[in-house]
Amino acid sequence: MTTDAKFLEAIAAIVGSDAVLSGEAAAPHFKDWRGRYTGKAIGVVFPSDTQQVSEVVKYCAAHKVAIVPQGGNTSLCGASVPLADGGRQIVVNLSRMNRLRALDAVNYTMTVEAGCKLASLYDAPEQADRLFPLGLTAIAPHCEIGGNLSTNAGGLNVLRYGTARNLVLGLEVVLPDGRIWDGLRSLRKDNTGYDLKQLFIGAEGTLGIITAAVLKLFPLPKSVATACIAVRDPAAAVALLAHLRATCGDTISAFELISRSCLDLVFKHIPDAREPFDAKHEWIVITQLADVLPAPLDGPLRFALNTFGDGIIESGITTNRDDAERWWKLRKNIAEAQKAEGISIKHDVSVPISRAAEFIAEASAALRTAYPGIRIVAFGHLGDGNIHYNVSMPDAARNKAFIERHEQDVHHLVYEVVAKLDGSISAEHGLGQLKREEITHYKSALELELMRGIKHTLDPHGLMNPGKVI
Amino acid sequence: MTTDAKFLEAIAAIVGSDAVLSGEAAAPHFKDWRGRYTGKAIGVVFPSDTQQVSEVVKYCAAHKVAIVPQGGNTSLCGASVPLADGGRQIVVNLSRMNRLRALDAVNYTMTVEAGCKLASLYDAPEQADRLFPLGLTAIAPHCEIGGNLSTNAGGLNVLRYGTARNLVLGLEVVLPDGRIWDGLRSLRKDNTGYDLKQLFIGAEGTLGIITAAVLKLFPLPKSVATACIAVRDPAAAVALLAHLRATCGDTISAFELISRSCLDLVFKHIPDAREPFDAKHEWIVITQLADVLPAPLDGPLRFALNTFGDGIIESGITTNRDDAERWWKLRKNIAEAQKAEGISIKHDVSVPISRAAEFIAEASAALRTAYPGIRIVAFGHLGDGNIHYNVSMPDAARNKAFIERHEQDVHHLVYEVVAKLDGSISAEHGLGQLKREEITHYKSALELELMRGIKHTLDPHGLMNPGKVI
Repeated sequence: MTTDAKFLEAIAAIVGSDAVLSGEAAAPHFKDWRGRYTGKAIGVVFPSDTQQVSEVVKYCAAHKVAIVPQGGNTSLCGASVPLADGGRQIVVNLSRMNRLRALDAVNYTMTVEAGCKLASLYDAPEQADRLFPLGLTAIAPHCEIGGNLSTNAGGLNVLRYGTARNLVLGLEVVLPDGRIWDGLRSLRKDNTGYDLKQLFIGAEGTLGIITAAVLKLFPLPKSVATACIAVRDPAAAVALLAHLRATCGDTISAFELISRSCLDLVFKHIPDAREPFDAKHEWIVITQLADVLPAPLDGPLRFALNTFGDGIIESGITTNRDDAERWWKLRKNIAEAQKAEGISIKHDVSVPISRAAEFIAEASAALRTAYPGIRIVAFGHLGDGNIHYNVSMPDAARNKAFIERHEQDVHHLVYEVVAKLDGSISAEHGLGQLKREEITHYKSALELELMRGIKHTLDPHGLMNPGKVI
Repeated sequence: MTTDAKFLEAIAAIVGSDAVLSGEAAAPHFKDWRGRYTGKAIGVVFPSDTQQVSEVVKYCAAHKVAIVPQGGNTSLCGASVPLADGGRQIVVNLSRMNRLRALDAVNYTMTVEAGCKLASLYDAPEQADRLFPLGLTAIAPHCEIGGNLSTNAGGLNVLRYGTARNLVLGLEVVLPDGRIWDGLRSLRKDNTGYDLKQLFIGAEGTLGIITAAVLKLFPLPKSVATACIAVRDPAAAVALLAHLRATCGDTISAFELISRSCLDLVFKHIPDAREPFDAKHEWIVITQLADVLPAPLDGPLRFALNTFGDGIIESGITTNRDDAERWWKLRKNIAEAQKAEGISIKHDVSVPISRAAEFIAEASAALRTAYPGIRIVAFGHLGDGNIHYNVSMPDAARNKAFIERHEQDVHHLVYEVVAKLDGSISAEHGLGQLKREEITHYKSALELELMRGIKHTLDPHGLMNPGKVI
């Protein structure tokens, strides 16, 4: 029996033999969602509870086998798959740990296991007249909450409810040596030393495996109004957002900017998608107001748009769910439409909201000068300064060669504008494998040193998700 | 010249001789606000900018002199004063670093230096139609934002806006070796590795000195309604809060519970304080709704109270500022009234909101059995599960002896109930010197080990605020 086979046998003794895969059966777990990274590992293990995770990790630590924590495997930066040349590794997939452990409607919290699909976490709160507000688009049906927390997921509702980090009150974590840290508190205030949970949120599994979490719930909105607004340019959108917040407050739960190039792709590839207005506009905004108070919100929204002044070309407002969904369909299908169109050079960047228009203008001007005819697909969560900014050549044949030759140059050009505007080269997708090297150019040596210090303190043997983040 | 005098001379060469105090002049900075701790240090230094802080810390590190960061010196747990027997230490007071560096109304952020008084941080946002929501009561006129962040301050508005941690987008920190970490980002989304700023928030100055921060601003509320509600008991208050959130949403910005014993103290010691109702009630709640939308909120508030069902004895609602202030005066003067009455055994605890009534009932029953005639002054931020729970004997002469003899036993009894209900023995005041030993009984050995690991990584020589927290 090979060393690997013996190893898997020992792991199977912990979790049961139906909970270990190797060879062909394991292969899908070594490949990321985008098909960009294919790694190698001894196998995949599917523990059923925290105790099993702990024992698996202890065994791995004792045998110096590295661990790749995996949830829905929808990482967009390759954090949830093993390296191709990372030595002896095993994937620990949390999908079987998918229990809702508790829901406390009075405390507005629920306790969930890491393997719960995000999409499964809306119903129980809703039954209790509560909202769990983490809302993603493209990966929503597949991703799991453990991965969402490990990447500090963002999505559509950050403007109103914050990123995943802001939704966590407590964590349970299996540390790199296999010990279980029970930090499953459900307190809004607890100032008793360093807030350890913050370390694991957004660490992409490099400091330990999140096995469960206490998540905040919110009152369920009863009144919703949605607007689709053609704006003159991104600068008008930025000003409109500040105005809307000042007049409608935190009823604004989403504010998304979409460029003409996105709309054109959606109309080309998505059946039943329709122009929101008779005229074609270069930039549209879709924004949503939602409130627990049942008073209709279309009036305040209309008032806010009417008092904005210059910059709005035309707009529509609805409180009808189906009408709103038709607009949202435009936004939610951009990723799908892009996929159908072919590959592109993608950026998930953020800048201060007040500089978002500057970013789009400067990056686009520089790209158009450097690469005449380039197509820029810009859209995103303007409400939190996060722009998805993707670049390709409209001609498919030419595009492939363009990307092969110029991908790094395009990244560099875009990231330099981001850096100049004090932005981030990874707003919500994380670093994973994809940006691990790139980030070293944009973070200070001191910050990288501090990160390495933390990593070494928690994972001195470097066994937890090696080759990711740092 | 003594070693200490030479040391201060070198420090004066960095900051100027008018920015160094020693002897009698420095003494007030060695004593905490409550007068509970009096420490010893070589002197106090008042740097004017981050560069000076950096140079001072570098000099201290080179000479193995420990550093006590200090802001308004309003710590309630002795974190901001030197130990009495802590070896060679110097107090680094940030009060001269009190510039508002920037306000970006479109990004809803402001960049402030650590020495800005909290009370000074409301005006500039308000001029720009923005709100900075951190609201404390007793220490408000004196405390500084650097200290607020270092203790992750809570206060009245946590229910709506979160603790200080939730209000921070970026930090500038002088590390224990004197290097400056520039993490002054103003991004809502930035997933590029470990979120280092989280380490320094709430660390009570034990990992570095916060010198500046980027803080979130919010839309300024235009409509406010306040209610004073006599409730049957704390359980009714807990249920009412859940109901109010479900019907009025996050317009609820405060929900404070006050016991009869608090009210009696306020009426005894605070001039012009008046009973809110003709009848005397055992428990009252003061709650506030605030919204950016200008629609009046008294209607929704009345509707919510009317639909609550059993548990409300009587209630009043107002949208008039002066009327509301008369009610708030009752809440805001509790600390003052207690001070006038004499010393007490204080607890700043939190439990899940759903268990707050259980906490009060169990702790009070146990105390009354153990110490007949005891007076329990319970009040606080029920909206976030944080109860200030103070205990004394009504008779002043007897009280002193009672506290001397039983303080530790009373703490123990209260904290055991807190622990049973998965609560925290320090909800918002931190650990400082006061609870550094106590917390070791209520945190797991593993958690303490992780905290020590972090401390050692960032401050290997233990020079940053020694003897506090860990």
